[in-house]
Amino acid sequence: MTIIYQYKVASASFLGFFRLLKAWRGSVYKLIYKETIVFCVMYAIISLVYRLALNATQRRLFEQLVAYCNIYTNLIPVSFVLGFYVSLIVGRWWTQFMNVPWPDRTLYIMGSYLVGRDENSRMLRRTVARYMLASLVLILRSVSVSVMKRYPTMEHIVDAGFLTPAEVGMFENVNCKYNKFWVPLVWANTVLTTARREGIIESEYGFKFVLEQIADFRDRCSTCFVYDWITIPLVYTQVVTLAVYMFFGACLIGRQYVENVADVPDLYIPFFTLLQFLFYMGWLKVAEQLINPFGEDDDDFDMNWLLDRHFTVAMNLVDYCHSVHPPLVKDVHFD
Amino acid sequence: MTIIYQYKVASASFLGFFRLLKAWRGSVYKLIYKETIVFCVMYAIISLVYRLALNATQRRLFEQLVAYCNIYTNLIPVSFVLGFYVSLIVGRWWTQFMNVPWPDRTLYIMGSYLVGRDENSRMLRRTVARYMLASLVLILRSVSVSVMKRYPTMEHIVDAGFLTPAEVGMFENVNCKYNKFWVPLVWANTVLTTARREGIIESEYGFKFVLEQIADFRDRCSTCFVYDWITIPLVYTQVVTLAVYMFFGACLIGRQYVENVADVPDLYIPFFTLLQFLFYMGWLKVAEQLINPFGEDDDDFDMNWLLDRHFTVAMNLVDYCHSVHPPLVKDVHFD
Amino acid sequence: MTIIYQYKVASASFLGFFRLLKAWRGSVYKLIYKETIVFCVMYAIISLVYRLALNATQRRLFEQLVAYCNIYTNLIPVSFVLGFYVSLIVGRWWTQFMNVPWPDRTLYIMGSYLVGRDENSRMLRRTVARYMLASLVLILRSVSVSVMKRYPTMEHIVDAGFLTPAEVGMFENVNCKYNKFWVPLVWANTVLTTARREGIIESEYGFKFVLEQIADFRDRCSTCFVYDWITIPLVYTQVVTLAVYMFFGACLIGRQYVENVADVPDLYIPFFTLLQFLFYMGWLKVAEQLINPFGEDDDDFDMNWLLDRHFTVAMNLVDYCHSVHPPLVKDVHFD
Amino acid sequence: MTIIYQYKVASASFLGFFRLLKAWRGSVYKLIYKETIVFCVMYAIISLVYRLALNATQRRLFEQLVAYCNIYTNLIPVSFVLGFYVSLIVGRWWTQFMNVPWPDRTLYIMGSYLVGRDENSRMLRRTVARYMLASLVLILRSVSVSVMKRYPTMEHIVDAGFLTPAEVGMFENVNCKYNKFWVPLVWANTVLTTARREGIIESEYGFKFVLEQIADFRDRCSTCFVYDWITIPLVYTQVVTLAVYMFFGACLIGRQYVENVADVPDLYIPFFTLLQFLFYMGWLKVAEQLINPFGEDDDDFDMNWLLDRHFTVAMNLVDYCHSVHPPLVKDVHFD
Amino acid sequence: MTIIYQYKVASASFLGFFRLLKAWRGSVYKLIYKETIVFCVMYAIISLVYRLALNATQRRLFEQLVAYCNIYTNLIPVSFVLGFYVSLIVGRWWTQFMNVPWPDRTLYIMGSYLVGRDENSRMLRRTVARYMLASLVLILRSVSVSVMKRYPTMEHIVDAGFLTPAEVGMFENVNCKYNKFWVPLVWANTVLTTARREGIIESEYGFKFVLEQIADFRDRCSTCFVYDWITIPLVYTQVVTLAVYMFFGACLIGRQYVENVADVPDLYIPFFTLLQFLFYMGWLKVAEQLINPFGEDDDDFDMNWLLDRHFTVAMNLVDYCHSVHPPLVKDVHFD
Repeated sequence: MTIIYQYKVASASFLGFFRLLKAWRGSVYKLIYKETIVFCVMYAIISLVYRLALNATQRRLFEQLVAYCNIYTNLIPVSFVLGFYVSLIVGRWWTQFMNVPWPDRTLYIMGSYLVGRDENSRMLRRTVARYMLASLVLILRSVSVSVMKRYPTMEHIVDAGFLTPAEVGMFENVNCKYNKFWVPLVWANTVLTTARREGIIESEYGFKFVLEQIADFRDRCSTCFVYDWITIPLVYTQVVTLAVYMFFGACLIGRQYVENVADVPDLYIPFFTLLQFLFYMGWLKVAEQLINPFGEDDDDFDMNWLLDRHFTVAMNLVDYCHSVHPPLVKDVHFD
Repeated sequence: MTIIYQYKVASASFLGFFRLLKAWRGSVYKLIYKETIVFCVMYAIISLVYRLALNATQRRLFEQLVAYCNIYTNLIPVSFVLGFYVSLIVGRWWTQFMNVPWPDRTLYIMGSYLVGRDENSRMLRRTVARYMLASLVLILRSVSVSVMKRYPTMEHIVDAGFLTPAEVGMFENVNCKYNKFWVPLVWANTVLTTARREGIIESEYGFKFVLEQIADFRDRCSTCFVYDWITIPLVYTQVVTLAVYMFFGACLIGRQYVENVADVPDLYIPFFTLLQFLFYMGWLKVAEQLINPFGEDDDDFDMNWLLDRHFTVAMNLVDYCHSVHPPLVKDVHFD
Repeated sequence: MTIIYQYKVASASFLGFFRLLKAWRGSVYKLIYKETIVFCVMYAIISLVYRLALNATQRRLFEQLVAYCNIYTNLIPVSFVLGFYVSLIVGRWWTQFMNVPWPDRTLYIMGSYLVGRDENSRMLRRTVARYMLASLVLILRSVSVSVMKRYPTMEHIVDAGFLTPAEVGMFENVNCKYNKFWVPLVWANTVLTTARREGIIESEYGFKFVLEQIADFRDRCSTCFVYDWITIPLVYTQVVTLAVYMFFGACLIGRQYVENVADVPDLYIPFFTLLQFLFYMGWLKVAEQLINPFGEDDDDFDMNWLLDRHFTVAMNLVDYCHSVHPPLVKDVHFD
Repeated sequence: MTIIYQYKVASASFLGFFRLLKAWRGSVYKLIYKETIVFCVMYAIISLVYRLALNATQRRLFEQLVAYCNIYTNLIPVSFVLGFYVSLIVGRWWTQFMNVPWPDRTLYIMGSYLVGRDENSRMLRRTVARYMLASLVLILRSVSVSVMKRYPTMEHIVDAGFLTPAEVGMFENVNCKYNKFWVPLVWANTVLTTARREGIIESEYGFKFVLEQIADFRDRCSTCFVYDWITIPLVYTQVVTLAVYMFFGACLIGRQYVENVADVPDLYIPFFTLLQFLFYMGWLKVAEQLINPFGEDDDDFDMNWLLDRHFTVAMNLVDYCHSVHPPLVKDVHFD
Repeated sequence: MTIIYQYKVASASFLGFFRLLKAWRGSVYKLIYKETIVFCVMYAIISLVYRLALNATQRRLFEQLVAYCNIYTNLIPVSFVLGFYVSLIVGRWWTQFMNVPWPDRTLYIMGSYLVGRDENSRMLRRTVARYMLASLVLILRSVSVSVMKRYPTMEHIVDAGFLTPAEVGMFENVNCKYNKFWVPLVWANTVLTTARREGIIESEYGFKFVLEQIADFRDRCSTCFVYDWITIPLVYTQVVTLAVYMFFGACLIGRQYVENVADVPDLYIPFFTLLQFLFYMGWLKVAEQLINPFGEDDDDFDMNWLLDRHFTVAMNLVDYCHSVHPPLVKDVHFD
C-alpha cells in the first residue's frame, strides 16, 4: 500500500516537509532502525575495547588506525553512486507502474460495438472482461508476492470468479512450459471473432478497434513480465551496496573518539556519523524498496487493491452501466 | 496560479535574471521567510548563551563542539541529494500537467461527424461536452484542493451546469466504491452509440474516430488519478528533508562565532550561513511546491481557470461556432 | 536567428571547438560583457579603498573579512545547481521547438484527397492552408515577441494574406475571452466537412485522415500555448540566480589581494576570478537565453523565418505543385 | 542468462541488499577477481622493492614519488565520469532489450482474420509465424554471439524448422550484399497478400491490421540492427577506461606504505585501495557487461531462451490454441 | 564510418575495456595528439625559461605565480560541466541518428497494395522508391558533408539514377527559395493518387496506409533538417570549451616544477597533468565528434553506406523480390 502524504504538503508552507519527518509507516526510521541498532552496538563494542581493554602501545596503534580510516572514508563517493543508482531505480519503478495494464479502455470501447442487454450479449461482454482480468491476475501472480499470496493456486482464481473450473481445465491443457498468461487473451480474441462472424458485433471497424485494445493490453502484460524478468544487473546493485557498507564499516573505526586529537570533544555518541547513517542508509533503502515495486513494502504498489478496483469497474462497464444513459435534456446554459 | 515571468527575461540581457530577484509573489523569500526567522532566533539564542552565560571551561567545551560541528556539516552532501531529488520532482510535475486532459480535440472531431444545427444535434453535442467536463471536474476534485473547494458537493457541479440533478441521481446510483469519474464518460459513449444507431452520426469511421478521442480523454483522466495516487516514496522525501534540516541543525552550532579562531572576524550575523539557508532551503521549497502541483501555492497550476476556459471553448466548439465558416473567397495571392 | 556553427566543427579536428571562441554574435562575451564591466568596476573600487583609504587597523579587519569570504565562497555549490538547472532548461527548450506545428503533413495528405485543379478545389485547399497558417500566427503572436512585433494587429495579418477582412470580422465576433487561435482551425474543419458532404472529397478515409492531421496540428498549437503559460517555477530560477550572484558578491571581497598572505603575488587583476565569472555567468546566460526560446536573442528560434517558409511551401503544396508529376519513365537501372 | 535476484529483496528488510553480496554468479567478485590479483601482485612487487632493494637515497626519492602520486590520484574525477558513462550505457542497454521484437502481437491479430482449422489455413498461419521467427533468428545471429553459436549456418536454421531447404535456396538467391533479415518478412507479406486476393483473409481491415503489425516487427528488427551497428563512440569508452586504469596505476605507487609519514600505520595490505578497486573497477565492469547486452555474460539477455519461448508460443497461437475457446457460460457473479 | 568495437568486448572479461586502449582509428590518441604536442611544447618553453633564463628574484615571483595558479585550477569544475554537456550531446547524437528516415517500411507496405509484375506496376513502384531516395539524398546533402561531396550537383544525382534529367528540370522549376527536399515526395504522392484513381491500387485502405508511411518519411526528413538547423546554443559550447582551455592554460604555469616545494620530486615531465589532458581533452573531443554526427570523423555515421544499402534494398523490395514467395509447404513440426 503506497503511503499517501502529498495532501499534507499540498501547499509549500512553514516547515512543510519537516512535518513529514514525524511519520512512521513507510518512513526511513522504520526501514533502517534494525541496521542502526546493529551499527550502534558494534560501534560501542569497539569503543569499549579501546577505552577499557587496550594498553598504551595498542592505543597508539589504534589511534593511527582511526586516523587512517578517517582519511579514507572520504575517498568513497557514496553520494555520487547513490545519486545515479537511485535515479535509475526510480525511473524504472515508475515506468513499471505505468505499464500495469488497465482493462478500462478495452471495455469502454467494446461497450459501443457489442451492444444489447440480452443475456447472450451480457455473457459475451462479461466473458471478455473476465478473461482480461484472469490474464492480469496470472501475470501479476508472477511479478507480485502479494498477489501470489492471495491467489496461490488456480482454485483461488476460480473461487474469485475470474475463471470457471472448465476454463482452468482448458488452460492447463495448453502445452507450453512458459508463462501462459496470454491464453485467456487468446480466448477473448476467439470469442470476439466468433461474435463478429455471427454478426453480434456488426461493425468491422469496431471489431478491429476492440482487437487492437486487447492487443495493447497483452503488450502491457508482456512488458510487466519483461520488467520482472530483466532487472538491474546484479553487479551494479552489488557495487552500490558495497560502497555503502564499506563506508560504514570504515566509519566504525574511523569515527571512534580517540585521545590526543585536538578540538574533538568526547561526545561518546558519534552524533554526525549516525546522521550520515540515517541519510545514506535511508537513500539505499529507497532503492531497496523500489527495486521490486510489487512486493509487500509499506510503499509498494497495492496490486490487490487494484485488482479489486478493476473487477468492480469492469463489471459496471460491461454490464451494470451498459446501454444506460440519462435522458437527453437541454442544459442550463442552452440558449 | 502560475507566476509568469518569462517575458521579463524574453531576451538574455544585462542583469537579466537578476531583475527577477525583486519579485515577491511566488518568490523564494515568501516561501522561506518563516523558517529563516526561526533559524535566526535559534542562532541568536545560542550565540547569547555562549557570549553571556558560559564560564571559561564551558566556553572551551563549546568551542570544541563548534569546531566539530563545522567539520561534519561539510560531510552532508546536501546539494547532491537535492539536485537529484528536485530533478525527479520537476520531471514528474511537468508530466503531470501535460497529462491533464483537454476536451478540445474530441469536440473538434465530433463537430465534423455529428453535424446539424437543429435542436437535437445541438443537444447531443452539448451533452457529450458536458459529460466530458463533468468527468474532468470529478477527477480534478480528487487531485486538486482548489477544485474541491470550488465544487465541494455534487450540488455545486449541478449549479455550474455540468450535470443535471437527474444525472447526479443516476451517478450516485452506480454501485462502485472507487472513484467514479468514468461514469459520465460511459454515458457519453452510450449517447454517441445511440446517435450512431439512429443514423445521426452517418459515418462508421467518424463514430470510431470520436470514440477513440473519448477513450484517450479517459486514459488521461486515469493517468491524473494514478499520478495522484502514487507519489514519490515517502522515504525519499524524508531522506532529503532530513539532510537539509540536519545540515542547518549542525550549522546552528558549527557556524557560531567563537573566540580564539584565527582570521574569523566577529560579524555577529552569520552572513554566509544565511545565504546558504536561502539557497538550500529555497531549493527544497522548489520540491515542496511542485510535489503537489494542483495545490494552492502561488506557482501551482490554476485548475479552476483551466476549467472555465474549457467550458467556454467547449460550448463554442460544439454549438456557437459549429457549422459556421466564412464564405470561400480567393485570397490575395490567388493568381 | 539561431547561430549556426556546427559546420565549423563538422569534424573533430585540431583545436576544433577552440576556434569557436573567436565568434562574437551569440557568444558568451557579447552576453556578459556588461556584467563583467560592472564586476570589474566594483572590484577596483574595493581594491582602491583597501590600498589607499584604510588605516592599519582597518586593513587587518579587512584582511580577516577577505579570508572569511574566501572560505565561504567555496561552500556555494554553484556548478552543481547550474548543472541541474541548465539541463532542465535545455530539455524544455528543445521540446518546445519540436512542438512548433508544421503545416506540411496536413497539406501533403489533403492534396491526395481534395484533388482537381479547377478554381473551386484550389480555393478550398488554399483556404484550409490559410486557416492553418492563421492559427499558427495567432498562437505564435502570443508566445513570440518577434512575431508579435511583425503582426501587432489583425490588420497586419490581413495584409499578409493570412485572413480576409471578412474573416477577421467573424473571428472577432467569437465570444471567448481566452486565446482564440483555434477559431480558424474550426473553420478549416467546417470547410472540409462541407467539401465532404458535397462529394468534393470522395473518400471517407481521406476525410478522416485529413481531419486527424488538423487535430494534431491543433494539439501542437495548444502545446505551444501551454509551454508558454507554464514556465519553470520562479522560485527555482531565483534560487539559481541567487547562488550565482551571491558567489560573485562574496568574490568581490574574498578574492581581493591583501598583504601578508604567503605565496599570493599581487596581480592587481583577479585573473582567475574573471575566468570564473566568464564561466559561471556564461552558464547562467545559457539558461537565460533558452528560458524563452521565442524571444529576440541571437540564438532564439527565428519564428518569422519559419512562418515565411511555411507560407511559401504551403502554397506550393496546395496549389503550384499540386497534381503535377513528371511522366512515368523507366529509370536507368530498369533491366 | 540474466541473474534474477529481485525476489530476494522483494521487500526492503533488515540487511536487504547486504545479503546480495554473497552471490557469486554474475557478481562483481567474479568479474574482477583476475584484475584484482594482477593489481595485488604488482603492488606487492613494488612494495618489496621499496622495503628490500632500495638504499636510503632511493627510498627518499621513492617517498617523494609516493606523496606526489597520492596528491594527483585525487585529481582524477573517476566517480564523476563513471556516473555519467554508466547512466548512458544502462539507458542504451534497456532500450536495446525493449526493442527486441516479439512475434506475439502479430500472431494474435492474424488469428482473428485468417481463421479456419483446415490444412491450408493452418499452413498459411504457420508459414507466416515461421517467416517471422526466421527473420528474428537472422537478425539475432548478427547481434548476439550466443545465437550465432547456436545457428552458425543456414543448415542449423533449417534443422530447427524455421525455414525449409527450398526457402534457404531462394533466400540465398536474393542479390543483396547487406543484411538480408528482411527477406522472410517480404515473403510473409506476399503470402498474406495472396491470401487476401484469394479471399482467405476476408476483411480488408484485417489485412491492413496484420500488415501493420509485420511492418512494426520489421522496424524493431531494423532497430536491433542499428543499435548493434552504431555503438557508443570508441573515444568515450577509451576516456572512461583510461581514467579508471590511470587512477589505479597511480595508486600502485601513491598508496604504498612509506616510512616517515605521520599517523599511517603499516598495514602491509592497502585495504582501502582494494575496496576502491572493487568499487571503481566493479562500476566499470557494469558498463563492460552492458555495452553488448547480447553477449555471453552471466547477466546478458538470454536470446536463445527467448527464441525457444517465441517458437513454442507462436505455434500455440497460430495452431494449437487457434479457434478454440471454452464454452460461453454465466460467471459466478452473473446476477 | 563508425568504429565497431563491441564484439571485442562482447563479454566482460579480464582486462576487457583495457584492450580497447590499443586502438588507433577513432581513438582518443588520434583525436588529441596535435593538441598534446602543442601543450607539451608550451610547457617545455616555460619550464626552460624558468630553469635557465630567470634570476633569483624572478624565480621567487614565478614560484608565487605557480602556487597561485595551482590553487585556482582546482576551482574550475571542468568535470562537472563536461559531464552535463556531453550527456546532452550524446542524447542529441543518438536521436539524430534514429531520425534518419528509412524507406523500407513504406516500400514493404506499398508492395502489398500496388501489386503486379507487369511493366507499368514495376515502373510505378520503382518511381516511388526513386522519389523517396531522391528526397533522402537531397536532405542528407544539406546535413552531411560526405553526402554533399559525393553528390555535389543535381547531375550527380541524375548519374546515380535517383532522378532523370526531366525530373531535375521540373524540380528546378519549383519556385521556392527554401530547401526543396519535399518536392519528390509530393510527386510520389501524386503518382500514387493517380494510380489509385486509375484503379491500379485497388484498396482505399491500402492507399491511405501507403500515404501515411510517406508522410512519416517526410516528417523524419523534416526532423533531420530541424536538428541540423537548430544546434546546441553557441554560448553553451563556448562556456564548456573555455572551461577546458582555461584549465589547461592555468596548468601550463601551475603544474611547473619549482624549487623549494616540499615533497615534489622533479620529474621534468608533468606526468599527471598529461594524463589529465588526455582525459579532459578526450572528453571534450567526444562532444566535438558528436555535435555534427554526419561529418567525416572516424566515428561519424556513414551516410553514403546507408544510401547504398537503401538503394539496393529498395530495388529488391519494389521489384526483384516482389510478388515472389516460396511455395507453401508443411513445416517439419506440422503434425
